[in-house]
Amino acid sequence: MATNITFHAAALTRKERNDLRQQQGLTIWLTGLSASGKSTLAVELEHQLLRDRGVHAYRLDGDNIRFGLNKDLGFSEADRNENIRRIAEVAKLFADSSAIAITSFISPYRKDRDSARQLHEVPTPGEETGLPFVEVHVDVPVEVAEQRDPKGLYKKAREGVIKEFTGISAPYEAPEKPEVYIRNVDLAIPDAVKQIIDYLDSKGYLPAKKE
Amino acid sequence: MATNITFHAAALTRKERNDLRQQQGLTIWLTGLSASGKSTLAVELEHQLLRDRGVHAYRLDGDNIRFGLNKDLGFSEADRNENIRRIAEVAKLFADSSAIAITSFISPYRKDRDSARQLHEVPTPGEETGLPFVEVHVDVPVEVAEQRDPKGLYKKAREGVIKEFTGISAPYEAPEKPEVYIRNVDLAIPDAVKQIIDYLDSKGYLPAKKE
Repeated sequence: MATNITFHAAALTRKERNDLRQQQGLTIWLTGLSASGKSTLAVELEHQLLRDRGVHAYRLDGDNIRFGLNKDLGFSEADRNENIRRIAEVAKLFADSSAIAITSFISPYRKDRDSARQLHEVPTPGEETGLPFVEVHVDVPVEVAEQRDPKGLYKKAREGVIKEFTGISAPYEAPEKPEVYIRNVDLAIPDAVKQIIDYLDSKGYLPAKKE
Repeated sequence: MATNITFHAAALTRKERNDLRQQQGLTIWLTGLSASGKSTLAVELEHQLLRDRGVHAYRLDGDNIRFGLNKDLGFSEADRNENIRRIAEVAKLFADSSAIAITSFISPYRKDRDSARQLHEVPTPGEETGLPFVEVHVDVPVEVAEQRDPKGLYKKAREGVIKEFTGISAPYEAPEKPEVYIRNVDLAIPDAVKQIIDYLDSKGYLPAKKE
């Protein structure tokens, strides 16, 4: 009876999965001030990866995380930490699936970003290898971001309506050694995207450009 | 200055993404008793989808969820609900990315599974369409599962070492209208996988089999 329980399909290893998908899973972690251009960059990066390289790529951003997985979280320090922790865990699941996860959150604290990096790079028991973690600092002076202020958030922060706003009333801890540094003041978004894709190509993380 | 902020790459719609990936995103939600065969089935299903259909598929199971995203959760009623809620949200992200998410959890309560279904099927503001949710009931009599007991969990439940164990000291609420019903007593796993793939094909959810 019930002999099928002795049937054990072997779970795919990460390498076998990457080979089948012809793609290396990884996470691209964008960090920078509000209005630094992270989201616009993420949208265009994702589109180019899907269209021109034929890879599975997916953005995690405020729209699909804050109103979904993390809708139970507020803005206390504990909740902000938990917000970033969950985003890092979900990005890792996508990367483990051989996809490219693109996260687009201010993520102002070095400690949180380093935890996200460690989660990817250090193999946990049962894993053969770590996963690449590509930290991208999208840098603008706070004065520039404040002048852009597309959502009026800096204005509200100055008025004290929003408390602990990164760059105004809460710190932004810039990455010390990001894999990619983008100075996004007068740069065109396609050029910024090219910086990231050039980095991925330099590491051999992407299939060749489709003809 | 900073003219690039007026550059707005349009985010891909779900349809555009599916077209680019040549794949329909969806979630396959396996539910059933411990030792019903869910995990073995999920492993083989994932492998066939990747290898034979060339689609992006990924399993969410205890190994990659309980020790990662949900490692902060225990086994209180609230934590069990939150466990399933987060799994449903993550599965939806994969499905939204045009991937096939395969979840493999006992998920004994109808209310929780119905919430997961609703999350997928009912478009939230900003979404054009819902996502297919394929509930698969992997059914065995509890006596059969208890006789298999590969991890010795039923024994511990009988001894009272594990409290509120589904099928022994906590209820399993069987699905009333699952998309796929699998009676997994003497069935071979490949036949069970075929039942699921046949269902997906009948709905036109999969690309044709690769030659």
